[in-house]
Amino acid sequence: MKHLYLIGMGPGSPEYLTVQAIETLKRVDVFFLLEKEGRGKDKLLAMRQAILELYRPEGGYRLVIAPSPERQTLPGGYQETVRAWHENKLALFARLIADELQDSEQGGLLLWGDPSIYDQTVSLIAELAGRSGGKFDFTIIPGISAVQMLAARHRIPLNRVGEEILITTGRELARADPAQIHNAVVMLDGQCAFQHLRGQDLEIYWGGNLGCPDETLIAGPLDQVGDALIQTRDRLREAQGWIMDTYLLRRRKL
Amino acid sequence: MKHLYLIGMGPGSPEYLTVQAIETLKRVDVFFLLEKEGRGKDKLLAMRQAILELYRPEGGYRLVIAPSPERQTLPGGYQETVRAWHENKLALFARLIADELQDSEQGGLLLWGDPSIYDQTVSLIAELAGRSGGKFDFTIIPGISAVQMLAARHRIPLNRVGEEILITTGRELARADPAQIHNAVVMLDGQCAFQHLRGQDLEIYWGGNLGCPDETLIAGPLDQVGDALIQTRDRLREAQGWIMDTYLLRRRKL
Ligand SMILES: C[S@@+](CC[C@H](N)C(=O)[O-])C[C@H]1O[C@@H](n2cnc3c(N)ncnc32)[C@H](O)[C@@H]1O
Ligand SMILES: C[S@@+](CC[C@H](N)C(=O)[O-])C[C@H]1O[C@@H](n2cnc3c(N)ncnc32)[C@H](O)[C@@H]1O
Repeated sequence: MKHLYLIGMGPGSPEYLTVQAIETLKRVDVFFLLEKEGRGKDKLLAMRQAILELYRPEGGYRLVIAPSPERQTLPGGYQETVRAWHENKLALFARLIADELQDSEQGGLLLWGDPSIYDQTVSLIAELAGRSGGKFDFTIIPGISAVQMLAARHRIPLNRVGEEILITTGRELARADPAQIHNAVVMLDGQCAFQHLRGQDLEIYWGGNLGCPDETLIAGPLDQVGDALIQTRDRLREAQGWIMDTYLLRRRKL
Repeated sequence: MKHLYLIGMGPGSPEYLTVQAIETLKRVDVFFLLEKEGRGKDKLLAMRQAILELYRPEGGYRLVIAPSPERQTLPGGYQETVRAWHENKLALFARLIADELQDSEQGGLLLWGDPSIYDQTVSLIAELAGRSGGKFDFTIIPGISAVQMLAARHRIPLNRVGEEILITTGRELARADPAQIHNAVVMLDGQCAFQHLRGQDLEIYWGGNLGCPDETLIAGPLDQVGDALIQTRDRLREAQGWIMDTYLLRRRKL
């Protein structure tokens, strides 16, 4: 039996790991680090290595670094693009588990934030476990998500009394009916989809590079702070070539 | 200056605390424990005390235990009931901070799960900080939410590719349009509101007392497992007089 732990690492810094995550790290024989292309590559790799150096100072584990398959835009559109990308990832995980994880060994994957939110690794690994006929199993260790960091840093609850919380993407937000937005946390938004929601009496609570040294917070009525926000975001992104950001849109109370 | 830390403790067991939460616990001079009436009272108090004994074994802190104001149903309906209840809580926190926290001391509140999800303590404390004229401030330490535990234990992501995630209450679910449900995590549902959503081609992933020794998981098509689920829930609730449960409803893919 081979076993893989999908470990939520929180938003990057070692202090966001839970005790459960640290105890799990200590049992792992092989860590798989998937390297993404782009200018954030070194930083993301460095954060994972910092976590291992802190919690496994004595070493005694193998490190397998593999390039993460890149997403290639296909003519069939978004769903087809994502499907092909997932097939490539599935093939990569299948190869890593077959070749790099020995029987009765425990593997570990450090996943950004919480493994259950906008990360399809869980589904891919579940598929491989299903196919394995009982020879490969996995466990998920929850972690602090960027969603929770956003609320903690702005010192707000995600919902007011009795209200719903929607977690969505920039892509979905662009199609949403503004009247239906009460508390919407938006992730994966490279296009600042909030721009199309001016004049709707919304507050925005925005966080860039949460938990990182250059963490930046902006909050206020969207109509008033929207332009300055886009400028700040551009500036931060140009400084390192990339940015991670997320925000809550909330309808103001009448 | 007085400072209060609102510390997410995860779903109860000491292993769900983050390193940041533990480091924060170590700096606290006074812990406030609010006791709720009901048969879960002893257990919830015991869990908080277990956390303190584990991470503050040397003692050296004060413990202030206060009864949490009870919610009394008022003739004006839900909003009025909640408003009055919050006023009482606000008065309690104001008194605790005035009388039990000295200048330049650090207080701590251990909050269940994550402080930002269906917990209005953050708003109440923010209000008191605002009123204090700079004499009282607070910090939020995120924790693992029951929402994340649910996904981790069922080994599923909360969303499929590109889909939204809705976090809602039993009360809101009862009013929702079933056609609009894609991934809905339901909390605070004493009435099993999912009962009214049969025949809608939904899957349910249910978790009772997640992270506790009697944790129970049920998953499957709602139409098939719904009745057995209600029976299991009743049995668990009768065993201790109360239950904490949450579930994900997901539309099946065509
Ligand atoms: C692929 S999703 C993964 C989310 C992750 N599983 C989590 O729980 O935070 C990546 C998105 O998360 C958000 N995000 C992740 N880390 C962030 C950070 N440190 N600051 C702000 N947003 C972040 C951004 O919206 C980004 O587009
Ligand atoms: C007042 S809300 C607080 C939620 C908390 N802040 C969190 O992040 O988990 C309480 C609701 O959370 C859910 N819940 C909390 N702990 C749970 C557990 N251990 N197992 C299942 N559900 C739980 C239940 O739906 C319960 O009605």
